[in-house]
Amino acid sequence: MIGVDFGTLSGRAVVVRVGDGAELGAAVHEYAHGVIDERLPGTGVRLGPDWALQSPEDWRQVLRVAVPQAVAAAGIDPGRVIGIGTDFTACTVLPATAEGVPLCELGSFAQRPHAWPKLWKHHAAQAHADRINAVAAKRGEAWLPRYGGKISSEWQFAKGLQVLEDDPEVYGAAERWIEAADWIVWQLTGVETRNVCTAGYKGIRQDGVWPSQEFLAELNPGFAGFTGKFGPEPVALGGAAGTLSAQAAAWTGLPEGIAVAVGNVDAHVTAAAADAVRPGQMVAIMGTSTCHIMPSDVLAEVPGMCGVVADGIVPGLWGYEAGQSAVGDILGWFVETCVPGAYEREAERRGVSVHEHLTALAAAQEVGRHGLVALDWHNGNRSVLVDHDLSAVVVGQTLATRPEDVYRALIEATAFGARTIVETFEAAGVPVREFVVAGGLLKNRFLMQVYADVLRRPLSVIGSAQGCALGSAIHAAVAAGAYSDITAAAAVMGRRSEAAYLPDPGRSAAYDLLYAEYRRLHDHFGRGEGAGGSAGSGGPAGLGGSGGPAGSAAFGGNDVLHRLRALRNRAGA
Amino acid sequence: MIGVDFGTLSGRAVVVRVGDGAELGAAVHEYAHGVIDERLPGTGVRLGPDWALQSPEDWRQVLRVAVPQAVAAAGIDPGRVIGIGTDFTACTVLPATAEGVPLCELGSFAQRPHAWPKLWKHHAAQAHADRINAVAAKRGEAWLPRYGGKISSEWQFAKGLQVLEDDPEVYGAAERWIEAADWIVWQLTGVETRNVCTAGYKGIRQDGVWPSQEFLAELNPGFAGFTGKFGPEPVALGGAAGTLSAQAAAWTGLPEGIAVAVGNVDAHVTAAAADAVRPGQMVAIMGTSTCHIMPSDVLAEVPGMCGVVADGIVPGLWGYEAGQSAVGDILGWFVETCVPGAYEREAERRGVSVHEHLTALAAAQEVGRHGLVALDWHNGNRSVLVDHDLSAVVVGQTLATRPEDVYRALIEATAFGARTIVETFEAAGVPVREFVVAGGLLKNRFLMQVYADVLRRPLSVIGSAQGCALGSAIHAAVAAGAYSDITAAAAVMGRRSEAAYLPDPGRSAAYDLLYAEYRRLHDHFGRGEGAGGSAGSGGPAGLGGSGGPAGSAAFGGNDVLHRLRALRNRAGA
Repeated sequence: MIGVDFGTLSGRAVVVRVGDGAELGAAVHEYAHGVIDERLPGTGVRLGPDWALQSPEDWRQVLRVAVPQAVAAAGIDPGRVIGIGTDFTACTVLPATAEGVPLCELGSFAQRPHAWPKLWKHHAAQAHADRINAVAAKRGEAWLPRYGGKISSEWQFAKGLQVLEDDPEVYGAAERWIEAADWIVWQLTGVETRNVCTAGYKGIRQDGVWPSQEFLAELNPGFAGFTGKFGPEPVALGGAAGTLSAQAAAWTGLPEGIAVAVGNVDAHVTAAAADAVRPGQMVAIMGTSTCHIMPSDVLAEVPGMCGVVADGIVPGLWGYEAGQSAVGDILGWFVETCVPGAYEREAERRGVSVHEHLTALAAAQEVGRHGLVALDWHNGNRSVLVDHDLSAVVVGQTLATRPEDVYRALIEATAFGARTIVETFEAAGVPVREFVVAGGLLKNRFLMQVYADVLRRPLSVIGSAQGCALGSAIHAAVAAGAYSDITAAAAVMGRRSEAAYLPDPGRSAAYDLLYAEYRRLHDHFGRGEGAGGSAGSGGPAGLGGSGGPAGSAAFGGNDVLHRLRALRNRAGA
Repeated sequence: MIGVDFGTLSGRAVVVRVGDGAELGAAVHEYAHGVIDERLPGTGVRLGPDWALQSPEDWRQVLRVAVPQAVAAAGIDPGRVIGIGTDFTACTVLPATAEGVPLCELGSFAQRPHAWPKLWKHHAAQAHADRINAVAAKRGEAWLPRYGGKISSEWQFAKGLQVLEDDPEVYGAAERWIEAADWIVWQLTGVETRNVCTAGYKGIRQDGVWPSQEFLAELNPGFAGFTGKFGPEPVALGGAAGTLSAQAAAWTGLPEGIAVAVGNVDAHVTAAAADAVRPGQMVAIMGTSTCHIMPSDVLAEVPGMCGVVADGIVPGLWGYEAGQSAVGDILGWFVETCVPGAYEREAERRGVSVHEHLTALAAAQEVGRHGLVALDWHNGNRSVLVDHDLSAVVVGQTLATRPEDVYRALIEATAFGARTIVETFEAAGVPVREFVVAGGLLKNRFLMQVYADVLRRPLSVIGSAQGCALGSAIHAAVAAGAYSDITAAAAVMGRRSEAAYLPDPGRSAAYDLLYAEYRRLHDHFGRGEGAGGSAGSGGPAGLGGSGGPAGSAAFGGNDVLHRLRALRNRAGA
């Protein structure tokens, strides 16, 4: 069984044994172009602030390079592989022809930024998202509460509306508007399919229908037919999208005709890899950003969640998603731009990474000793504020503040962000029964302990370092018929350790004080000037508190973060 | 003529020609112990957070080393020197015997932190200052408005009360409580004197009297006799304290019997060096911190100023003082702890300092392009909030924020702090007619331009790189009878360039927007939870707005900075 995980900077293939989930071999292929955020490849065309694109050819290369390498590493006969599953970042979305050819690969379109795939973290469509939210709220669109009251600028409609209004020719030429998750499956099978997961979470499909033409026309008359570019009806997770085409077999070295799983999202497949697909098991995939995925038997409207989708994680349960726009990215940015040479040299002398050096120094402190509290909005806020125009705040620095102090405060800020999400779910009546961690940040044991202490809960941890790819392989196993459903496959092939980290009562009590400060700052800087306890009422910028425990600031807000961003964008124009 | 400037890290002597103020030679001596803030020299005794001490022997060494070196550098016959003047940081204050022996030099007292001189930036007496302010406000002490409504934890009474309550034995043994400014003159002359400048600004002497015994007893019965340790009546600036003793002549190599000027403060003598001793000439001495000194013919109560003292700068005028607790210190801290190795290496490759490298990068930006605004409270706030328990806030960081962005935002924050002070003076009816810059930060031309743009005023700059020492030499010239008064001497020996930097209207307009954000954050984080436009009413922590243009926040405050500091101090206990 092969699972392939398409991440932000690279793609990873892993070979997994069907009988027990053992990982037999793996390979990683770095994208040649990585994240395209300055200028289009091979051209002088510059991109604006907040843009983030990718190259489809980088993705194909993962199939050509990483898959054969993983099979070779596993030392198995490729002829024994019976299925392949994939997962992708989302919403990563591209305009294509009816044959699935990305527009950016068509002649002169290569010069046009809007013809390229927009990566999940393309944040230049916030103004479009704001309009979508305002119009949807005004019309009382029934789907809006399913997305916590706001859809994100990262999703299909905001990005699509930006294309229409900024480059109508590209919009017109796009016969298809397709998630990369489905596009890569099309590359593997030669047949176009769509999956219920991205259709629900990123495409606003609820109760079997897309947003109405009337709604879309009110945004822009030219946008009325947008969902006509969405291809065939989405199909359920856990099934087969088709079989491996001759061309894809040639690329991968795998047998033609093996099962190809329905397209899926990196975070969502990880729930299977952690064997955490039962109600109330919240899986936090913590890497550059964090995605929270939770099946539930309860349907509720959770303020600021990313979405709730029927069958969105496993068939038969509601699938909830929430997220933090940056976690590891914040720490990476800090190490890259805020840590002096003396620390780099000391880390080198000790034979550790700068991250490890800072972590060791930070871990030696008592809670609160640094005198700092930060807001973790360096890349905006996905949940529960749903506002990518927010930015970070650091409070409490003195002339005695050291790099490890700020590093620790940033780690804590992300933990406070996670607690805000968990509390918002529970306050909305959706129980969180277990907090399961997956992803690259698992390797930082201090960070994990901070999360346990801040959340006041035991943390479970996934048993695989390659959760996404393993999850895709599990989905492939179901698609190939080796198991009856995802839950059954996950029980055998997935794995996690329960209560791997336990909260310390003393530290938890101290963190409660810092968390209270975080929440006050969160509401002050995050909920706009009108915020003052009136749940659900928008501030002047349409950012008012949407209720929940975080929605009742007892004092007025300050929209400074939006004004600074506007000033920044004007100064750069 | 010799001027000696005792700074925070070193002492500087300069030889100046009486006839025209030409600087003939100079020498610097670094203090062996610098700022003592971790443990007492030669002992294992650890100091608490916010402590800062100095060693008297370090000061004597300046007389023994720097003075002869300056004379040698000038190439003059020491016999031609007719006077010596000194200036000191303030309030730097020490307990001594009736003979002027510092207690820390007496046997076992060397082991006791409170026996050592407390440097101006010793900030561990904030709780004592808070009580002094509360009691003074309750009693309606007439002197309180002369200090902007609050005295500082840096000053004599807060520091003295801390000694009494933390180490009563040291307090009892202290026959004298004396500013280093007066102590060093005592070392030179062998005769104890006091000056009106430190007596007024740091010793709360107004209208010829110290605070009453009744007031002091209400703070602590044992404190009633505190002013009995203050020595003889203060004398006016511009006079002679006495003549050079045989011992001091031996130390310095200067002739016994030459005039020794009355003790003075580094900032205050600089006004003479800049020939800026007329009403409305505000001299900003910008170095590690900034001190603002301004003579005026108007007496008014300026909220949050450090003090107004009759004859405090020159006889015959009211002398105003305000300050910023850290300016260059913030930039120094940033370069030391927040700038990555790659920048250090690039600066080295370009053959410039890291400061110069960051400045060049920052200067290339348009106003507002970094998307940041900061509060410059890394060392608390001296004016107009008078609260050393405040700490810094940085707002607006993203994953794209670079070190030069934050560096520029910190420079701007200090300029906004300066503008807050100037506006507060003018709003109180004390005109600021000219803004004159002196001090080490003059060398950063970009920083100067930011100040001109933010202040919307032309900047004048002092004509000497050694303003304090030159100012002391000018005072010595008056003490020696070479000029009739300070104003006459300053007109000949001092110098400044008018309108050296002119504001750019476009940049000024853009900075107005950032300054508005600064002021909102300033009031929100600086004026306590009760702040809401009720001028003069204290918040729960006694930090309520004290009026002035900054006192009318239209929204509630957040005392988070005080709570974080309390948590920090508890965690460290």
